[in-house]
Amino acid sequence: MQPEKYIDQYRHALLNDVIPFWMKNSPDLESGGFFTCLDREGKVFDTDKFLWLQCRQVWCFAMLYNQVEPRREWLNMALTGAKFLQKHGRDDQSGNWYFSLDRYGNPLTQPHSIFSDCFATMAFGQLYKATGDEAFKTIATDTFYNILKRQDNPKGVYSKAVPGARPLESFALPMILCNLVLEIESLLEPALVNEVIGHGIDTVMNKFYRPELGVILENISPDGTFSDSFEGRLVNPGHGLEAMWFMMDLAERNSDEQLAQRAVDIAIQLIEYGWDHEHGGIFYFLDVKGNPPQQLEWDQKLWWVHMETLITLLKGYLHTGDERCAYWFERVHAYTWSHFSDPAHGEWFGYLNRQGEPLLTLKGGKWKGCFHVPRGLYQCWKTLEAIQAKVPLNV
Amino acid sequence: MQPEKYIDQYRHALLNDVIPFWMKNSPDLESGGFFTCLDREGKVFDTDKFLWLQCRQVWCFAMLYNQVEPRREWLNMALTGAKFLQKHGRDDQSGNWYFSLDRYGNPLTQPHSIFSDCFATMAFGQLYKATGDEAFKTIATDTFYNILKRQDNPKGVYSKAVPGARPLESFALPMILCNLVLEIESLLEPALVNEVIGHGIDTVMNKFYRPELGVILENISPDGTFSDSFEGRLVNPGHGLEAMWFMMDLAERNSDEQLAQRAVDIAIQLIEYGWDHEHGGIFYFLDVKGNPPQQLEWDQKLWWVHMETLITLLKGYLHTGDERCAYWFERVHAYTWSHFSDPAHGEWFGYLNRQGEPLLTLKGGKWKGCFHVPRGLYQCWKTLEAIQAKVPLNV
Repeated sequence: MQPEKYIDQYRHALLNDVIPFWMKNSPDLESGGFFTCLDREGKVFDTDKFLWLQCRQVWCFAMLYNQVEPRREWLNMALTGAKFLQKHGRDDQSGNWYFSLDRYGNPLTQPHSIFSDCFATMAFGQLYKATGDEAFKTIATDTFYNILKRQDNPKGVYSKAVPGARPLESFALPMILCNLVLEIESLLEPALVNEVIGHGIDTVMNKFYRPELGVILENISPDGTFSDSFEGRLVNPGHGLEAMWFMMDLAERNSDEQLAQRAVDIAIQLIEYGWDHEHGGIFYFLDVKGNPPQQLEWDQKLWWVHMETLITLLKGYLHTGDERCAYWFERVHAYTWSHFSDPAHGEWFGYLNRQGEPLLTLKGGKWKGCFHVPRGLYQCWKTLEAIQAKVPLNV
Repeated sequence: MQPEKYIDQYRHALLNDVIPFWMKNSPDLESGGFFTCLDREGKVFDTDKFLWLQCRQVWCFAMLYNQVEPRREWLNMALTGAKFLQKHGRDDQSGNWYFSLDRYGNPLTQPHSIFSDCFATMAFGQLYKATGDEAFKTIATDTFYNILKRQDNPKGVYSKAVPGARPLESFALPMILCNLVLEIESLLEPALVNEVIGHGIDTVMNKFYRPELGVILENISPDGTFSDSFEGRLVNPGHGLEAMWFMMDLAERNSDEQLAQRAVDIAIQLIEYGWDHEHGGIFYFLDVKGNPPQQLEWDQKLWWVHMETLITLLKGYLHTGDERCAYWFERVHAYTWSHFSDPAHGEWFGYLNRQGEPLLTLKGGKWKGCFHVPRGLYQCWKTLEAIQAKVPLNV
């Protein structure tokens, strides 16, 4: 691993391509908040505002302000999004965050997704760090406690499942809590932080990771058994790979080398499982028994899957020096930069077909915003720097 | 158009390939009802029972019994499905039909889809025709009246939309009612039949069909205006093409030649709009403004789209003699038979990628069952015969 080969590439793309793309094209100067539906060149093609993406963009600019340098324009971007969210984001009655709003902030879709709340917590947590404004702290912590309260029944009245018929626990929420708790660690009681972390690690590594299958399942029965159903057989390799860098961050915090090595071992299993040996790239969805998955997009190559994998492989290498991480990093790096980045018009494509051609040429939409690409570029840049600083120790 | 070139091909595939495939592989001899999740060779890979497909398969076998010949084995297939549905299909409280059950009939998913009810009406209507059993008639008519009662708010409590925020009417229900009412015409008061038909034709041809855009939209505002949103811009060419043969059936019933010609003109517009000039086949979803659609499966080629289009083109030719129908029939026929049918293992693939290769090799799943292929083969066969019988008039 020669980190110096890559550091500039990641830093430069973040600061000179991706962030300027969103600064230029996404602010809604009239109504506040951000446009996220941007075509290949950055032109707005839809004005709806999706809470996941509004919150994630606030988080992104506040994080850059906190971690890279305190540029006033970045803080202003975060603040303009936050103002819109404070005014329009929550259902007054429940305090839950909506799923989508129209351009003007009128709610379109009910607060059915607890992930809106997760990303709101991240956003206002970072913004509190940036500004010290107590109002932001209150929003972050209130929302976090509300998530904990709802976590055993996250879909609430919006679930279409018949209660009790086939209870399933989903990987996404416990996994994201492992990241979220580190985001707002300083705002919480240490006992609560330790409880959430302990529970999160156990759930991810001992319940959803299945050594006998070599994968992380997306849904399991509450008693931990395998559910032989479409949901129970579902594997999303990129999701598991993302979770492994959350695990490595927790391992670093807890100085738990064993956890880091286990996360690396699982990550390597997942990438070997999810890699498309015919066309390259990582599949979006697979059925663990090899049956046809329900998702028609199963063979597509998604930007976030590859970005998160790059982070995991670099963190894995940093913490363990495992050469498999270096090998796979080079391979995924080569695929990712040659297929997702779009030097002609800036930012990255989000959705490729199996063959690696853009399936949609958008740069942002209902699910892709200013988040995975900049967070990933930042994380890779900083991890490469840490590897470089550590290199004399490894050789 | 030389119908004799094709008649045997459609009849033979129906009676010697497709129907035997389902007879052999789908009955659940232990718990009743049908398995529909069948792999390429017909092996069951999941045992959940989806109401749409259970009902459609009952309809299919009862229809064959009524229309082709009264084979006892076909009626038995329909009856075994009906018995399972009578016992497990409905929510006792509301009388609404569930979306899915487990193998044993325990409800898994709430009755959130009014289309379960539509297909139940079709199933029990055909079965009443086959048997004269009043219990079947009652189920068909009760369910139909229940649909009419729910039609203005079909999703009911399962909608995630904020009420009133962006009201949209969907094409699917009025379109399917145009077919459903003919299915059970003899069980209804003539005044009601005429009302549903009149309203259906008007809604499809004057509200959802947009002459200024040359397409049928999937969702419009209740006042008939265009909604510039993901939902409002959505076009599903195959859905509109299917609706056009429903219109032609109504035109035939009403001896309305003008309606038949209009349906042909729209069908030709839709196929010219939806045809993939690069790889052949009809796209699944398009955005009418040319923006990236939300559906990641937008460029895929689906079996039902092509089957329904073949029916429409043949009926169009039968009723109008329009040579554009003959031209497009030959083209779609060639694509469909060379890409979807699977002589090696029987039945048809359901999902192809844009390039025309099988994306999933299943023969049945959560959405593909014993319905579009056999119904389409039957409809094409019979329409080809009618064209043949009429040919001397056309030359």
